[in-house]
Amino acid sequence: MTMPLPAGSTIGIIGGGQLARMLALAAARLGFKTAVLEPQENCPAAQVANVHIQTAYDDKEGLEKLSQLSDVITYEFENIDVSALEKLSSDIDVYPSAQALRISQDRLVEKTFLQKSGLNTAPYRDIDNAQTLESALQEFGERGILKTRRFGYDGKGQIRFSGKPDDMLPAEAIEAFEGAPAILEGFVEFTCEISVIASRGQDGNVSCFEPAENIHKNGILFSSTVPSSVSEATKQNAIDEATRLIQALDYVGTLGLEFFVMPDGSLIANEFAPRVHNSGHWTEAACSVSQFEQHIRCCIGWPLAKQHRHSDCVMENLLGHDIEKLVTLAGDPNIVLHNYGKAEAREGRKMGHFTQLATRK
Amino acid sequence: MTMPLPAGSTIGIIGGGQLARMLALAAARLGFKTAVLEPQENCPAAQVANVHIQTAYDDKEGLEKLSQLSDVITYEFENIDVSALEKLSSDIDVYPSAQALRISQDRLVEKTFLQKSGLNTAPYRDIDNAQTLESALQEFGERGILKTRRFGYDGKGQIRFSGKPDDMLPAEAIEAFEGAPAILEGFVEFTCEISVIASRGQDGNVSCFEPAENIHKNGILFSSTVPSSVSEATKQNAIDEATRLIQALDYVGTLGLEFFVMPDGSLIANEFAPRVHNSGHWTEAACSVSQFEQHIRCCIGWPLAKQHRHSDCVMENLLGHDIEKLVTLAGDPNIVLHNYGKAEAREGRKMGHFTQLATRK
Repeated sequence: MTMPLPAGSTIGIIGGGQLARMLALAAARLGFKTAVLEPQENCPAAQVANVHIQTAYDDKEGLEKLSQLSDVITYEFENIDVSALEKLSSDIDVYPSAQALRISQDRLVEKTFLQKSGLNTAPYRDIDNAQTLESALQEFGERGILKTRRFGYDGKGQIRFSGKPDDMLPAEAIEAFEGAPAILEGFVEFTCEISVIASRGQDGNVSCFEPAENIHKNGILFSSTVPSSVSEATKQNAIDEATRLIQALDYVGTLGLEFFVMPDGSLIANEFAPRVHNSGHWTEAACSVSQFEQHIRCCIGWPLAKQHRHSDCVMENLLGHDIEKLVTLAGDPNIVLHNYGKAEAREGRKMGHFTQLATRK
Repeated sequence: MTMPLPAGSTIGIIGGGQLARMLALAAARLGFKTAVLEPQENCPAAQVANVHIQTAYDDKEGLEKLSQLSDVITYEFENIDVSALEKLSSDIDVYPSAQALRISQDRLVEKTFLQKSGLNTAPYRDIDNAQTLESALQEFGERGILKTRRFGYDGKGQIRFSGKPDDMLPAEAIEAFEGAPAILEGFVEFTCEISVIASRGQDGNVSCFEPAENIHKNGILFSSTVPSSVSEATKQNAIDEATRLIQALDYVGTLGLEFFVMPDGSLIANEFAPRVHNSGHWTEAACSVSQFEQHIRCCIGWPLAKQHRHSDCVMENLLGHDIEKLVTLAGDPNIVLHNYGKAEAREGRKMGHFTQLATRK
């Protein structure tokens, strides 16, 4: 248990996208400075951070400079070199730990860890080659999703098998993955998807936001609705499982844990992200404290806030040119807006989001 | 009626204190950039703004640079040279207008304008010299407050007369003011003080937050409580009067209007500030939209949000070394914090604030 960092200390953030931007804004409100490391010029976070180190994420000099300028280091995305993070950790506190990052980076390791921590997962098989894929498919009734073990996000790096004639042949799929290690996940016939945003402070206390119900389109989060449609028992179960995971990871910071909800209300843990999470953006609009502030509190050694949610809400992402709706949305009295300050509205790119609060009298 | 500014546009802010800082944070959330003009290095707003022009507030080159970098200009304090602002206004939209600024800068002009707009004020007299002061005191029963007409804030530049032997002599008071133009205000035996934060968009629509009840200590705001203890009729009356004032000023932006509440519930307008206001900081914690976002919306030509307040609350300022309480306050589940990032905790200096939300189950 370290002492809280004094106000005015600097939080180093690896990555300069919208998550880092929202972390930087939350840090500023609490009187803390931020330094972001991000190769892209004028990235969302650099626009609001105190310092921008413009180098590649794994650039040694850049990371060293970040370490020198910062009093604690965190990151906004999980595709970071673990060994670089481990090296950083010998000089400065890094939250979440390199260990949590390592687990989250590999679907096989992650699923194994989830199971070991007492959470249910979809059935999965380690896939090395066309033969192991073929036999795993056979086991799963020719249906399942082949996923790269590493570096997949937003539905990228996935091949679906639905047991129909137009499925790829196993050998084709292995070839398409160019030898990348993969797992086959069995299909899960779920009713809906929910996620829990959990935070754990340096004192070991845990605080979870209630589950949001998520809808994905084309593998990208489309909306998060709170309260979700699931039963109170399922909500509590999801919070208990997120608590179990975050403790098992000996985690400091905020994470997002996604679940599939089965027809009987039971939960299948899908994956976790060792960072603030898109499905937690609603907290900024509908709660007394946001996931971003909770994460910052963890980093600076403050106690977690026990948040309350003051409104029902639906958060929707604004992708690509959807961002142009912003001014129209601004006229709605119950909408809270967030624009990430990205110059170019490429298709599918996360440009901003809005949270519609339930209408009040 | 101009078109809304496109996202990514830059809002120039004269002044780099905590109000500018909170404006910059609100602008960032909406995807807008900020440039602040402020002589002080590493000022609160420069830490979060995109550009810091470090010159005196009335520096011609600095203001010109601000005008060139910005798409609209606003300011965070009222002690700005009106003629400099008028000059700026010929090149770029400035909100609130130089006219509103001019009225607010002179207590005599301000009180006259308030009365002309149909608001009641305390009795007042223009004071030129010891003789006019003496006769005004006589008229007011030897009691009243002598105030400089210009450049007073947080209780500075005021001399009280209470009709007792240890009062200053009129000649002494005039000497203490070193010839500064002044007014004498009659005492008002009020029950409590309230303020209304009102915003008016470029479309002429007005939105007011409900009145906060304010307590001052040593002439500095100590706390704002919402809801206030006044009757519904008095609340509505305060909102109606703020609406009348903001329309009479043909104002664009957010202002704070302070009232004394009399024992019969009637209102005496005290003064208005042509900017976001300390007594409106609670809006950031207890409402779906803050006074800062409302002001930014006015500047960028967006519609105002029709806010709702989701919690009862009390905002308290953290002055000087009070800021050290922040970490302790952080442990309270119902407290929302704000630290302005000032390096030195000088006595009486506004370092931050916190808003205690009413406890939820």
